[in-house]
Amino acid sequence: MSKVTFAEISPSEFFYRNRDLAGFSNPARALYSATRELVENSLDACETFGILPDIYVRLTPAEMNGSDADPRDYVLKVQDNGPGIEVKHVPNAFGRVFFGSKYTLRQSRGMFGMGGKMALLYGQITTNKPVTIKTSSDGSTAYTFQMMIDIQQNTPIVVRKEASPADGFTGIMVETTLMGDYGRASGKIQEYLKQTAMVTPYANITFVDAYGNLVVFHRNTTSFPNPPRDTLPHPYGMDVEGFRRLLRQTKETTLFNFMRKKNFHRVGDRIARKFLEYVQMDASMDPKSLGNEETVKLVNALHKFQEFLQPDADCLSPLGEEILKAGILKEIDPEFIAIAVRPPSAYSGFPFIVEMALAYGGKNLAAGIKVFRFANRIPLLYDETSDVVWKVVNEEIDWRRYRIPQNAPIAVISHVCSTRIPYKTVGKEYLADRPELEREAKNALRENLRRLTGYLYRKGTMEAVKRKKNIYAKYLPLIARFSTELSQAKRPPRYRKLLDEGEAVEGQRTLEEYR
Amino acid sequence: MSKVTFAEISPSEFFYRNRDLAGFSNPARALYSATRELVENSLDACETFGILPDIYVRLTPAEMNGSDADPRDYVLKVQDNGPGIEVKHVPNAFGRVFFGSKYTLRQSRGMFGMGGKMALLYGQITTNKPVTIKTSSDGSTAYTFQMMIDIQQNTPIVVRKEASPADGFTGIMVETTLMGDYGRASGKIQEYLKQTAMVTPYANITFVDAYGNLVVFHRNTTSFPNPPRDTLPHPYGMDVEGFRRLLRQTKETTLFNFMRKKNFHRVGDRIARKFLEYVQMDASMDPKSLGNEETVKLVNALHKFQEFLQPDADCLSPLGEEILKAGILKEIDPEFIAIAVRPPSAYSGFPFIVEMALAYGGKNLAAGIKVFRFANRIPLLYDETSDVVWKVVNEEIDWRRYRIPQNAPIAVISHVCSTRIPYKTVGKEYLADRPELEREAKNALRENLRRLTGYLYRKGTMEAVKRKKNIYAKYLPLIARFSTELSQAKRPPRYRKLLDEGEAVEGQRTLEEYR
Repeated sequence: MSKVTFAEISPSEFFYRNRDLAGFSNPARALYSATRELVENSLDACETFGILPDIYVRLTPAEMNGSDADPRDYVLKVQDNGPGIEVKHVPNAFGRVFFGSKYTLRQSRGMFGMGGKMALLYGQITTNKPVTIKTSSDGSTAYTFQMMIDIQQNTPIVVRKEASPADGFTGIMVETTLMGDYGRASGKIQEYLKQTAMVTPYANITFVDAYGNLVVFHRNTTSFPNPPRDTLPHPYGMDVEGFRRLLRQTKETTLFNFMRKKNFHRVGDRIARKFLEYVQMDASMDPKSLGNEETVKLVNALHKFQEFLQPDADCLSPLGEEILKAGILKEIDPEFIAIAVRPPSAYSGFPFIVEMALAYGGKNLAAGIKVFRFANRIPLLYDETSDVVWKVVNEEIDWRRYRIPQNAPIAVISHVCSTRIPYKTVGKEYLADRPELEREAKNALRENLRRLTGYLYRKGTMEAVKRKKNIYAKYLPLIARFSTELSQAKRPPRYRKLLDEGEAVEGQRTLEEYR
Repeated sequence: MSKVTFAEISPSEFFYRNRDLAGFSNPARALYSATRELVENSLDACETFGILPDIYVRLTPAEMNGSDADPRDYVLKVQDNGPGIEVKHVPNAFGRVFFGSKYTLRQSRGMFGMGGKMALLYGQITTNKPVTIKTSSDGSTAYTFQMMIDIQQNTPIVVRKEASPADGFTGIMVETTLMGDYGRASGKIQEYLKQTAMVTPYANITFVDAYGNLVVFHRNTTSFPNPPRDTLPHPYGMDVEGFRRLLRQTKETTLFNFMRKKNFHRVGDRIARKFLEYVQMDASMDPKSLGNEETVKLVNALHKFQEFLQPDADCLSPLGEEILKAGILKEIDPEFIAIAVRPPSAYSGFPFIVEMALAYGGKNLAAGIKVFRFANRIPLLYDETSDVVWKVVNEEIDWRRYRIPQNAPIAVISHVCSTRIPYKTVGKEYLADRPELEREAKNALRENLRRLTGYLYRKGTMEAVKRKKNIYAKYLPLIARFSTELSQAKRPPRYRKLLDEGEAVEGQRTLEEYR
């Protein structure tokens, strides 16, 4: 009987073999994924340090022998004006899968600490060229690395490293050569940058594409939204492993102090005491003396105890009505906008906020419902029909109840922010249908639909008024003339005032008020 | 300026934090995922060694203080009669993410070497109980382990290990305690086992559920399908990294021998020679002396050279028409079945075969189209609408062209086998829409639809014939009698023969021929 061969593979090897999972399934998709991952890293870095982002993206066809046709090699360059990365961390930050800065409990675009590495890895396996990374944190010295990844070992290979004057530059510049298909990917890449600009109006984004076209998204505000903050884990999201880690790390000597002192989100003296009564455990015992069964009992009780406060969303950084509205006016320019910002909610102990806009009419919207999805300020452009928001829009809401005409020109713009976005894939393409998320999205859409219904009603009423007025305006003069003749009066009655009064009474509001 | 904190996390830590990706998002889903992963491991193990599988699955509510209501702890036990695992490998095989046997290029159910570990990990973080693993390879000594995972280190913790007499038992028994929700999961778990039995008729599957219900799927054949075999990588699927590894390992001293001697799938002398002419490289050069640029040039040429033979599918193990038909008759019992087995095809160098069945009518099918999806002999029960097969059935085929009445009772059963199934998620829920896969599924469905159309036509014709015959049978006697009276003939004409002849001429075929 032949033996089964066992092997161990490294994390980079795993994603090398299964790169579909991370969004690198083919040259067009890979070009898109590489671009977005690097842009998202840059935006996160700038925002963490309160720097208004200047992002520069450039795609250049790489030198090749042979045909110019897609798929072909491209040089992708992404540069930001962020804080840079400490020199000692650069090799691992880009060349070691599962090494990164995305592991705190905070709202960020990047979720898995994967993205930059996949861009490198994919470039390496398709073109065999090293990536160039330049960083400066102080504006005076810049460090340039040329690197590759040892995929089997999951370690970076630094091919070259040199220092040079930074001349004021701070931030990171990444340049990677990869096989891509810009012919196929250009639509999605441009859409991605456009939508990113829409929800990040405080960023400058400059894009030079593979054909040499220049697209610039200028910042139209310098007001920075509150940056997201780290937060403590919430009891409802706690599991045995997490709890045991807290126990291992704690310096507290009583269970009471352990519960109330900065281990759990929004658990202070009062609630800690009530919880320990509920679970019938001795508040003065040493947490480190908890046995296995007691630990499990405690953790189960953490989920069942009803009096923990819901996670507050102070740690989150929603877009807010102003930014949403400005972005939509700029990009879509509809006749009508309604915006609903839901109160903070939580799933499995992770706080989240759903913000949703509904746009109607205007020159740019086509007939039918177009859905724009965002999560933690990044646009989601794939797997639309698997997304919980799409499901809510298309399956959970009866649009006819709101008397929205079929094929009305509509856009639904949805933004979810959370300390943990429930992505179904490492490629961050769509959101799982967590019931709490679904509920909030549905309520947001209903709020907006009620307002659209009201608008359409008034619009319909106003148009009826207008039509009536036109009829009056057409016939009143005739009636006035005939009645003058009939009654052999000397002067026709003053009907003009009637027309004007009618207008004054009804429909004074203009459509401008709905934008 | 505060520093950014970098951290490295282990593979088990990554999946601990992102267990949604692996299908462990909530207690119901986790119970389903744990069950299927262990069952799939067992089936793979038996089949690799040509052992007719006897799989035993048992769910028992675990002892708990407090409420019995879901979600609650369950003991999940899965046992097989396979070859067992070498004792030295057991801790890592179950307690180390990315350590496993699923890394050869062969058709198997398990794809990522992940599944068993996630079942353990999830059990551990929800109940803190160790898993019990018992294995015997020789039927005389059995080894029982109690284990946990050090999630931060990605290493197994062996709590206990003992040897005992095996008393003839060979195989593996895994017993894990995890928080589950059988109330919610029972439907899917039972459906999973039922569909597994449908496509694995040579297996015995016994299931005792949490309520004590016993379900047994008996094997109804002892004929084992050809097991899948290892295969060599195909040029079309080769990338620079893969090529460089072959170069590093090779003992060949000429490029010609490197190309033709068992490195690539279906590349022998003739094709190797033609390829090297095409790429204009010296067939006698030492492959280890290839420079970086030459390597990249060679790899690009591997994709462009048109004369490589398509992957053959000898390494694959499709179900075959007989098994598909038997399973469908047993489980669905339709009025009509059509089966299409497509010729082997390939995507990115990975060979695959699409087999599709179309079932119509019978007592068990409801109105509408029900889709059953299988990949490498496992049922896919989630994310139906994201799957490429669902897309083909619902969006790519115009059913009206085939004159299938709306709401006809239909089932589409699809099986894809490949050395690499293009799953979009680690949870193995649905297939990506690779164009080659889409094309083959479409063609298979069309083949089957044409035959269903033919069947319905003949059925309609037969029913028309039957109706006609009923009319004749009703009126001919009257006509015969009247004409007899009118013509004052002595005897009525012999019409009975006419009726019988009519039947002989038309519609002799019975519906049985369509099953």
